[in-house]
Amino acid sequence: MSKTGDTPSIILVNPQLGENIGAAARVMGNFGLSDLILVEPRDSWPNDKAVSMAAGSPVLDAATLVPDVSTAIAPFTRLYATTARPRDMEKPVLTARQAMAEAKTAITQGEKVGVLYGAEQSGLSNEAVTAADAIITLPVNRAFSSLNLAQAVSVTAYEWTAEEGAPAEFEPITDLASRENLERMFEHFEDELDRAGFFYPPDKTPLMVQNLRNGFIRGRWTNQEVRTFRGAIKALALGRGKARVGR
Amino acid sequence: MSKTGDTPSIILVNPQLGENIGAAARVMGNFGLSDLILVEPRDSWPNDKAVSMAAGSPVLDAATLVPDVSTAIAPFTRLYATTARPRDMEKPVLTARQAMAEAKTAITQGEKVGVLYGAEQSGLSNEAVTAADAIITLPVNRAFSSLNLAQAVSVTAYEWTAEEGAPAEFEPITDLASRENLERMFEHFEDELDRAGFFYPPDKTPLMVQNLRNGFIRGRWTNQEVRTFRGAIKALALGRGKARVGR
Repeated sequence: MSKTGDTPSIILVNPQLGENIGAAARVMGNFGLSDLILVEPRDSWPNDKAVSMAAGSPVLDAATLVPDVSTAIAPFTRLYATTARPRDMEKPVLTARQAMAEAKTAITQGEKVGVLYGAEQSGLSNEAVTAADAIITLPVNRAFSSLNLAQAVSVTAYEWTAEEGAPAEFEPITDLASRENLERMFEHFEDELDRAGFFYPPDKTPLMVQNLRNGFIRGRWTNQEVRTFRGAIKALALGRGKARVGR
Repeated sequence: MSKTGDTPSIILVNPQLGENIGAAARVMGNFGLSDLILVEPRDSWPNDKAVSMAAGSPVLDAATLVPDVSTAIAPFTRLYATTARPRDMEKPVLTARQAMAEAKTAITQGEKVGVLYGAEQSGLSNEAVTAADAIITLPVNRAFSSLNLAQAVSVTAYEWTAEEGAPAEFEPITDLASRENLERMFEHFEDELDRAGFFYPPDKTPLMVQNLRNGFIRGRWTNQEVRTFRGAIKALALGRGKARVGR
């Protein structure tokens, strides 16, 4: 019935607002989920507001419309029910993070995983929660717990992909200065400061040096920054010399 | 200038849509962030669409309006810049998870932490990114990377609170049956199955028992469920007996 693949499917049961369906499809696309199943949306389908909020997400065009929960869940071997309310039910309760970690392993092992979300106002029925292997709940503030449906989908989608760290095109700092290079910079700087009479009284010199160096070291400077700063020291020292000469 | 406290502040620089400001305020409230700083929103302020999307979030009422980035960032000791585009800049790049873990430690140590977000279309300026200690980037799908502003705020807010696990009112399963109790149930079940001639051929019995038991054990049954199932076995066995007697 439904398309399932190597990512969890998102199953929205009786969603009310087209805007939320569209926003869910958008964020699913952002975070690498592709299969959206809609169980009887309240408003007619296709829905203009959903299209507008989806901002071109391919997930919306590929969404499947099904008439009831049992049709929606039929192909799955593992289902999670998201709910903000505790149910009087003996069912494992997981965070989205735990559930998506579990889902990742399960999918590797050939399982088909779905995550159920209820309607905006009412949430999932007890029958739908019963059909799930486990409950996903989110760490919402009890004083203001009403999470938008698309935001709830967002957290699951984000957790699906979050383990992978920063995208590769964000390169780490590659030009980091070695400690030897920093040491030469410090000596250069401190020599010039010493010549300028900065270290006074003399017994405070070690502490002053320590404080200066700590700030630079915490900055994790690059070789380019070391070269620039050494140029700056040189310029200041020469300038001082010149000023003195010219006086 | 801005209110800062024991949670990170969210700083939206030139946000365009009131809807996104409101949705950001809502999800901040959901995930326990309280301080929203708005740098020159495009549209007039206060904004009806923001109010509508905030769904009563107290974060919106408490939001601070400031005229420029330098005013916004002035009180902070640690700033993160969220950006989807890599910048040609020597700056640590963190995931939202890493950044919020770091922020939690920093705040414990008395730091004031802010997270900068740029406008919907253009993102943060290079100057704003330069002012930050580190970049936060999200693991978006490069083929569909345009994340809604409020969804991006959502991930940061969620990560701020996600370490805490499931809310306490979601109680773990407490009535789990002991292995001893399960063993008695298995023996009861297998005795009745044996009497019913289920185990045939006899040399397959150990494998059949093993398969039956595995399914139950994976289910992590509660004592109540054990009692119910033993009642069911008894009923079936008696029923069979009755049927036989009646024949």
